[in-house]
Amino acid sequence: MLGGKLESHGEIMISHPAKIEDAGDGSISFLANPKYEKHVASCKASALIVSNNFSLQHAASMAIIRVEDPYLAFAKVLELFSISDEPAKGIEDPVFIHPEAKIGKDVYIGAFSYIGKGAVIADGALIYPQSYIGQQVHIGKNSILYAGVKVYHHCHIAEHCIIHSGAIIGADGFGFALGENDMFSKIPQTGHVVIEENVEIGANTCIDRAVIGATRIMANAKIDNLVQIAHNVEIGQNTAIAALAGISGSTKLGNSCLVGGQAGFAGHISIADGTKINAQSALIKSITKPGTAVSGSPAVPFRDNYRALAILNRLPELEKRIKELEAKSGKS
Amino acid sequence: MLGGKLESHGEIMISHPAKIEDAGDGSISFLANPKYEKHVASCKASALIVSNNFSLQHAASMAIIRVEDPYLAFAKVLELFSISDEPAKGIEDPVFIHPEAKIGKDVYIGAFSYIGKGAVIADGALIYPQSYIGQQVHIGKNSILYAGVKVYHHCHIAEHCIIHSGAIIGADGFGFALGENDMFSKIPQTGHVVIEENVEIGANTCIDRAVIGATRIMANAKIDNLVQIAHNVEIGQNTAIAALAGISGSTKLGNSCLVGGQAGFAGHISIADGTKINAQSALIKSITKPGTAVSGSPAVPFRDNYRALAILNRLPELEKRIKELEAKSGKS
Amino acid sequence: MLGGKLESHGEIMISHPAKIEDAGDGSISFLANPKYEKHVASCKASALIVSNNFSLQHAASMAIIRVEDPYLAFAKVLELFSISDEPAKGIEDPVFIHPEAKIGKDVYIGAFSYIGKGAVIADGALIYPQSYIGQQVHIGKNSILYAGVKVYHHCHIAEHCIIHSGAIIGADGFGFALGENDMFSKIPQTGHVVIEENVEIGANTCIDRAVIGATRIMANAKIDNLVQIAHNVEIGQNTAIAALAGISGSTKLGNSCLVGGQAGFAGHISIADGTKINAQSALIKSITKPGTAVSGSPAVPFRDNYRALAILNRLPELEKRIKELEAKSGKS
Repeated sequence: MLGGKLESHGEIMISHPAKIEDAGDGSISFLANPKYEKHVASCKASALIVSNNFSLQHAASMAIIRVEDPYLAFAKVLELFSISDEPAKGIEDPVFIHPEAKIGKDVYIGAFSYIGKGAVIADGALIYPQSYIGQQVHIGKNSILYAGVKVYHHCHIAEHCIIHSGAIIGADGFGFALGENDMFSKIPQTGHVVIEENVEIGANTCIDRAVIGATRIMANAKIDNLVQIAHNVEIGQNTAIAALAGISGSTKLGNSCLVGGQAGFAGHISIADGTKINAQSALIKSITKPGTAVSGSPAVPFRDNYRALAILNRLPELEKRIKELEAKSGKS
Repeated sequence: MLGGKLESHGEIMISHPAKIEDAGDGSISFLANPKYEKHVASCKASALIVSNNFSLQHAASMAIIRVEDPYLAFAKVLELFSISDEPAKGIEDPVFIHPEAKIGKDVYIGAFSYIGKGAVIADGALIYPQSYIGQQVHIGKNSILYAGVKVYHHCHIAEHCIIHSGAIIGADGFGFALGENDMFSKIPQTGHVVIEENVEIGANTCIDRAVIGATRIMANAKIDNLVQIAHNVEIGQNTAIAALAGISGSTKLGNSCLVGGQAGFAGHISIADGTKINAQSALIKSITKPGTAVSGSPAVPFRDNYRALAILNRLPELEKRIKELEAKSGKS
Repeated sequence: MLGGKLESHGEIMISHPAKIEDAGDGSISFLANPKYEKHVASCKASALIVSNNFSLQHAASMAIIRVEDPYLAFAKVLELFSISDEPAKGIEDPVFIHPEAKIGKDVYIGAFSYIGKGAVIADGALIYPQSYIGQQVHIGKNSILYAGVKVYHHCHIAEHCIIHSGAIIGADGFGFALGENDMFSKIPQTGHVVIEENVEIGANTCIDRAVIGATRIMANAKIDNLVQIAHNVEIGQNTAIAALAGISGSTKLGNSCLVGGQAGFAGHISIADGTKINAQSALIKSITKPGTAVSGSPAVPFRDNYRALAILNRLPELEKRIKELEAKSGKS
């Protein structure tokens, strides 16, 4: 079923999945991160998923399943055993549904949710309690909005998206012009947000509406919790952004980028496809070469940053060596 | 209407505003950031707003409007063309309004909103659905609270404020004293939050109530999404704070400061008027000279930080030069 | 009552607590942070709480109360004078309570709250308006959930916890495996979150459910606003985490750690008991020695980081000195 090769010691019965360090009799576990290799010897799992090229140090007590990608295979196992909450369905009471909203078939609309004028909830969408769907918003087929998601007017969410609790889609971008007396005047934010299919957005993440046009999250992008996406940003396909990262206005991230937690991006820059950005880095200019790995604040190529940091904490020693040279040089 | 000077090639009809890189026939666009100058040649807009001192490299195909501040002028254009959602009004059903709450004229109270005992919603205020207005809270005239804002008891919000979805005003400050057995005991947070007129607060931003007295956001301050403002902080007039910044307890920011994203401030410090703080900087002591620009973690004057960073990534080379000097010096 | 020693000039009447810089006639204040010592001379408080070993520079006009810990003693004073909002009680209307949910005695359930199938609200718990309690969730005795808290299915919150508005407990962890065509496939997040007794969680903080097993916050831990706790993380007893910090998946923090604001932790590492982590630090490997103080990105022992930073901004000067040595050396 996992497309792997079984090395077994006979018939076994698997009752539940478990982490390698917790795994007991009857459980199936996996080993993908070499850090956890030390747990194999003492592991009491009845079956263990490992990669094709993993070599066992000791005779293993459990059945071994060899696969191409142990993490992916274990994901399939989790799906088999997963008992999530009971499937939500129907329209609970009370809800607020504007008479001009369109509600598809087989949807769930949880109690205390609000569906504004002209909004569309397509077939199979699940809107958990206390969500807010503003005027003219579109929620695509089979998309899931967990409890308390807020979507401002005119935003568009495509099919098969998952949006977690507390995410705010389409709030005004942070746009002000300095006017007379050093006072800010608000720039109307007249655009909206487009979220393409199969995107997942984490809890309490904010995606602001565009000044004009759209802030756009492209297909299959995955965004973690508490991320800030400013107005007119574009996030490419399959790009993943970890928690507490912030992307300033009009910046464009390419496809298949990986952004570490707490990383920050200046506005109006472009990041090439496949860029890897370390946690806490600060991107202050565009990256044009695909597949670059960067680190640091401001970000430089990963290797340069790594080398500089290796010396940084030896600066006091370096200064001492300079002083000694100066003393000698003075003498000579 | 924009107070500018028109350089036109005849009569034109403008149907919509657009970004310079997307602008097509019938659109009006603007050029404020020199980065976008390259788009002028290929720009198909029918009119373009530029600054008085901008010199065109090529013959422009569109009408040119010269103004003092292109960004401000374009903001006025956006307002003309802006079609926002239909104005909200009236009291939807169901809502929870305590019998001792006071509701002004021409207010909007969206479904599932909660107005606590003794709360005041002044004339013209808009309270979108699912908002929570605690006991004795004051919401000033014409202020807007978008869906799902939570305001704890006794907080005061003045006139013409805009508070975006998910913002939390008046949660307990993070105050604990280490007691016996290394255990924390909670310091009661007995103060409140005061937000003066014309303040805008971003989505999911948190402003904690004071231990005693008030956490205060002064008039015309603008705060972005996901910002943390701790207990007893004071934010000066016209100060702008970008997303994911955090201000620790009792710190005071002056007027007209600009705070970059993900910047952090230690507690109990004072920042002079007009201070400019780069993104990701860490302010660990007070700044006394108005108009200072700082950067870095910990923050130093911008120029110092810039110079140090320029050398940082050449540290391996510097160490090599020291080694060579040592080798020579040993020989001599 | 405070267990202190009174140095008084006669009978006085205390009407309210105040900060030392604001304290007027009839108020009681305290002095714990030496920074505020300068305010003593001009302070108009009628009583002042100071530590046993504080020596007054000038004759003080007010009564002096000497205690072991002025901050703790003042916390007791605040509790005496604290007038919070009127105690919430009963079940408001409308609420959604699933017929198979169990509701204890003396609880408060605010309007527009949702209690899912099989959920338990134990005696004395306060569930403020617009909260979401998913299927099979347990809320322990006397715990308080402020307005708009969302708890996903199967999570467990023990007794005497305080959870602030907008906190999201149990959203899916950020787990994806890269599959064919460079596309992510979602790893089901089948675990839950366990929050032990006497924990406080700040506004808009996110604590993700585990892949398998539990994400766990141990007794008496205190977590500030806008903090990200990823799947399978464990936070030890009495550990405090300041705002905007982020802890990546499967990382374990020991007991009595202090984590500064905006600090970040890589995944799969262990942090020893009593570790002190400066604001904005990045922990990229485990810390094994209890009581270590670290700083920097990446984090190193506090003293090393402090020394390196002291030189960092003198790098231009250091390079100049190297150039001079090279010039001399060339000549010789």
